[in-house]
Amino acid sequence: MAKSSVVTLLTDFGTVDPYVAAMKGALLSKAPNVQIVDLSHEIPPQDVLTAAMVLGEAARHFPAGTLHLAVVDPGVGTERRILAGRFGGQLFLFPDNGIITFVAQKLTLETIVTVRNIKYLPATAPSQTFHGRDVFAPVAGHILSGVELSKLGPVPESYKLLDLPVPQEGPDEIAGEVIYVDRFGNLVSNIRESAVRERFSALSAVRVFCAGRKVGPLQGTYGFVEPGEPLALFNSMGYVEVAVNRGSARETLNAKIGDEIRVARKGR
Amino acid sequence: MAKSSVVTLLTDFGTVDPYVAAMKGALLSKAPNVQIVDLSHEIPPQDVLTAAMVLGEAARHFPAGTLHLAVVDPGVGTERRILAGRFGGQLFLFPDNGIITFVAQKLTLETIVTVRNIKYLPATAPSQTFHGRDVFAPVAGHILSGVELSKLGPVPESYKLLDLPVPQEGPDEIAGEVIYVDRFGNLVSNIRESAVRERFSALSAVRVFCAGRKVGPLQGTYGFVEPGEPLALFNSMGYVEVAVNRGSARETLNAKIGDEIRVARKGR
Amino acid sequence: MAKSSVVTLLTDFGTVDPYVAAMKGALLSKAPNVQIVDLSHEIPPQDVLTAAMVLGEAARHFPAGTLHLAVVDPGVGTERRILAGRFGGQLFLFPDNGIITFVAQKLTLETIVTVRNIKYLPATAPSQTFHGRDVFAPVAGHILSGVELSKLGPVPESYKLLDLPVPQEGPDEIAGEVIYVDRFGNLVSNIRESAVRERFSALSAVRVFCAGRKVGPLQGTYGFVEPGEPLALFNSMGYVEVAVNRGSARETLNAKIGDEIRVARKGR
Repeated sequence: MAKSSVVTLLTDFGTVDPYVAAMKGALLSKAPNVQIVDLSHEIPPQDVLTAAMVLGEAARHFPAGTLHLAVVDPGVGTERRILAGRFGGQLFLFPDNGIITFVAQKLTLETIVTVRNIKYLPATAPSQTFHGRDVFAPVAGHILSGVELSKLGPVPESYKLLDLPVPQEGPDEIAGEVIYVDRFGNLVSNIRESAVRERFSALSAVRVFCAGRKVGPLQGTYGFVEPGEPLALFNSMGYVEVAVNRGSARETLNAKIGDEIRVARKGR
Repeated sequence: MAKSSVVTLLTDFGTVDPYVAAMKGALLSKAPNVQIVDLSHEIPPQDVLTAAMVLGEAARHFPAGTLHLAVVDPGVGTERRILAGRFGGQLFLFPDNGIITFVAQKLTLETIVTVRNIKYLPATAPSQTFHGRDVFAPVAGHILSGVELSKLGPVPESYKLLDLPVPQEGPDEIAGEVIYVDRFGNLVSNIRESAVRERFSALSAVRVFCAGRKVGPLQGTYGFVEPGEPLALFNSMGYVEVAVNRGSARETLNAKIGDEIRVARKGR
Repeated sequence: MAKSSVVTLLTDFGTVDPYVAAMKGALLSKAPNVQIVDLSHEIPPQDVLTAAMVLGEAARHFPAGTLHLAVVDPGVGTERRILAGRFGGQLFLFPDNGIITFVAQKLTLETIVTVRNIKYLPATAPSQTFHGRDVFAPVAGHILSGVELSKLGPVPESYKLLDLPVPQEGPDEIAGEVIYVDRFGNLVSNIRESAVRERFSALSAVRVFCAGRKVGPLQGTYGFVEPGEPLALFNSMGYVEVAVNRGSARETLNAKIGDEIRVARKGR
């Protein structure tokens, strides 16, 4: 394996406690030349949906062969399985709790296995509360040293995906909802750019509404409206987003996850 | 020195200000091929006890020879000494303020010196307020380039350890207290797993109490009780911990550092 | 280009959302052997002044040739230009919004160009809302692979600098103001150490005032006054700073950005 192998970490461990560092130490002990990149450690505790969004969006930008360790794992130590998969050339090691949902939407599944070959699991009984350090890190060490995913265990019959809200499409509109709010207070909907482009021949005839309030047409970027004004656009993740230029749409529109975002033909 | 040398940083500098980056820049200027890993920069300002906990728990998982720079240092620029030590094969550079306490408990002391050989200290008078950048980083550069700790200065007569609360043991119980609360609101006590295993022949006969309230028997992991329910377990650091499955014991039990945690024989 | 090239990232993206990780992935896809160092991702949203302070202070400590990507960019996707420059041997890629102000004060300008050579810009239309990932990262890849800055575009006639408050100097005093407050609550003024040393022959005759309140003489470091007491000193950035030993001057003195800091001859 090349010296420049990249491993990413996604956890809800935060950055005060020793957990992230202990996991990195365990990983470097097994794979000294790996480059470790943090996806995020600030996922709200046990929030698998947010973790799934971050993983699905960030992972696809990494070099092919990058190994992503996703450890938001409220079922740690119970009978939930640990899976290893390759999607779109990226490798993933993750608990079977739905955290792979957006990856599975955006990237093509190539291989998936249940990690249970005892040859590659820690010989001594690991902690039942910290599998990031005691199971994910050593298994990652094996993968990085060249062990094929197919050696880690059998292909599972199925794996868990989160039940996500699906936008409702009519001839003149698509009605979705806010599924993610970012640091800037931008409201990310579940309406894909591709769905809007398919439904409406002219984007200039489209108007966006948020929680019943008219936001306006689709803009190219935030700075196309005055500071403090709301706007809608296709964001960098490929979804319809409602934002406020140099402000927070969450605060200005008093909006939250689950609120309706609607894309409709002008005049409707 | 091998190209893959690892240096960890533990500070109370936070991640907004330029301090951590300036220190990393200074370190990379002296040791370009080093791999820098953050232990934490979110230690509460001047909180040597929390820093000592994080250092003691995280450092031991790193590859042998890793150099740990611990810069939670309220006495910066005063006459407090800077020490360099090797404990259990790990190297440490730290102010003599007790930050090494848990490392000294968990790992075997091999060497310790007071850093004062002017050959290895910055020639020009450094800032008196930012030794992380102006003293720790350049001294680390010397250590990483192969300078033996024994060259840095003489062995001190003693070094500072924090005065920690000690659990009280009786024939049928061990009474300790909460010494650390993590991001999840888990309450970490000062009662070691090994002490409980020695005192009680059958763990199934043990009950745990937190601030006078009965928590229950020792569980294998969080998911062994219902969501929202409190539980006790041996945590990944080797201590008795009180937690709430998919919740926060700090909030649910309204508990804080210093509150009693008691492990007692059932029926007592 | 050497394998140990260092790239730093400065953003206001925060550490929960996928943006920083996506940018790192894009960068590693173009430059697999680069070492990425975070300057900060916790700059308050769209706060170009704070970003400029952090960049100006941190960048100068890095090894010569380090490339700094500064992406606090409220005008993303509008007609604001992207500039590339070399100052004091350090390389910078940044939006033309004033973020380079303190770098330009502290380091010598060697080269500056407007990035617009389409040979080095992404061929497909990138996102208009995430240039960090879609423009800065690929252009950085070209710079790291050896493309000279002069190939990226023409020299601009001028570039934007922030309008900073200038201290007022009289024969017996320098009157400045708080321009930065750090994590510890230390109040950093715009009065430079060098200006104080030039104005006053004996530093022992100097007294510092903060928002009209006398703080006292210049001290060597925080620990030279009692815990909880305010003090003034020359800080590690080279400015007059008002602090509280083991406390927060922001809280103790109830001070904020813009409050007066005055350095005056004793008895005046």
